[in-house]
Amino acid sequence: MKIVLLGSGNVATHLGRSFKMAGQDIVQVYSRELENAYHLADSLAAEAVEKLEDITSTADLYIIAVKDDAIREVAAGLSLTDQLVIHTSGTTDMNILDGISDRIGVFYPLQTFSKSKAVDFRQIPIAIEGNTEEVTSTLKGIADRLSEKVIELNSLERRTLHIAAVFASNFSNHMYALASRLLKTQNLSFDVLRPLILETALKVQTNDPADMQTGPAVRKDYNTLEKQKELLLQDESTLELYEKISQSIINYDKQG
Amino acid sequence: MKIVLLGSGNVATHLGRSFKMAGQDIVQVYSRELENAYHLADSLAAEAVEKLEDITSTADLYIIAVKDDAIREVAAGLSLTDQLVIHTSGTTDMNILDGISDRIGVFYPLQTFSKSKAVDFRQIPIAIEGNTEEVTSTLKGIADRLSEKVIELNSLERRTLHIAAVFASNFSNHMYALASRLLKTQNLSFDVLRPLILETALKVQTNDPADMQTGPAVRKDYNTLEKQKELLLQDESTLELYEKISQSIINYDKQG
Repeated sequence: MKIVLLGSGNVATHLGRSFKMAGQDIVQVYSRELENAYHLADSLAAEAVEKLEDITSTADLYIIAVKDDAIREVAAGLSLTDQLVIHTSGTTDMNILDGISDRIGVFYPLQTFSKSKAVDFRQIPIAIEGNTEEVTSTLKGIADRLSEKVIELNSLERRTLHIAAVFASNFSNHMYALASRLLKTQNLSFDVLRPLILETALKVQTNDPADMQTGPAVRKDYNTLEKQKELLLQDESTLELYEKISQSIINYDKQG
Repeated sequence: MKIVLLGSGNVATHLGRSFKMAGQDIVQVYSRELENAYHLADSLAAEAVEKLEDITSTADLYIIAVKDDAIREVAAGLSLTDQLVIHTSGTTDMNILDGISDRIGVFYPLQTFSKSKAVDFRQIPIAIEGNTEEVTSTLKGIADRLSEKVIELNSLERRTLHIAAVFASNFSNHMYALASRLLKTQNLSFDVLRPLILETALKVQTNDPADMQTGPAVRKDYNTLEKQKELLLQDESTLELYEKISQSIINYDKQG
């Protein structure tokens, strides 16, 4: 299969590597910034392209892995008829590709990518959606070769998954960052929290997170909550988060 | 060493098991609820006690592992002179034990304990504090036999560590729980987020969490933030958390 990769960020980089390792042929890498295109194209033995009009129309698959608000513009620059075109965004509906080709779809790998860190793509869930059964089935075949965890989701389901992932990953990472900053006020090393963080994530690998909740809020230990707030009086926005999240734990109901 | 364990909750249970495995002699387990005392005492080959006046005064170490607001009351019920008495609370100052014995201290294991799940105590940081150098040094000797990660912290440092742990563990777990509930609105399984959660925790084992932050907020992708908020309009308190935490990510400065 001949693939054109549009984008050169984290998702494009990891997807490009994975397709390459799965034996696919990446023919072109497009980026508005030629240097970025060169860098990624080099490692994939592909041609670097900085103008949309230089993109070949003879590839089998066009993967648009650019920022959400650039998807439409990049897609509109392609001259295609029925070649398969997909984007990789969790938040963006498939229909943003309407009219670009007869065969459109979405291919959303659910992971927190850092360019510098290798990932085991086989374990990364990939949510797919196609505008016809044929496209969905083709995308499933493609995704199955990269990951053991392929799921079909419509656009609303995918958006829900994406926001859930923001809570589970971006927001939990921010809790680590706030913890790290609190420790710095006493010159304490973040090392001391690392085993706790790992254990917290490991516990929910086989359990429901609501059943694993510990700490003063879930115990409704208002005494401790008040004492902890005293320590945050110098840091208004962290104090507000402490109060809001504690209240959310106290009020939590699994069914919403 | 002869140990009296006061309390029968998660911390008492895990500490009791660890001391036992380290070859110490747990002579008594106290709980206001005799059944709980029996249950834990049984597994430790200790005597179960439900009245404070039945606690022996000939042990070497008294570990008060009860709820924070019960520490003083339990301690006041002991008749001791210079036997070593410690509590296990992160939030409570050592001086709550003033006057109970000449030798008082704190022994705070930093972990999220669930009774049902075994933990590797060797990897759990233990923060110790003693009212004299002799006590601190004795506690260090005791803690070193349980854990590779013993640190000396004063009461303010320990309280800071405790609140940092609330962010890093309780609050991140709550982010998982909110994610789980969001997925349920579309009948999606939490399984799909589990690899992402683990990867997020693994990344900060060797990196600074602020450097690992991904997602729309840290990219200042206001477009995506607005689109995600639309999905939360039915759930006011989750929407408010989404806004506050996103804003906190946008404003985050490592130095505070």
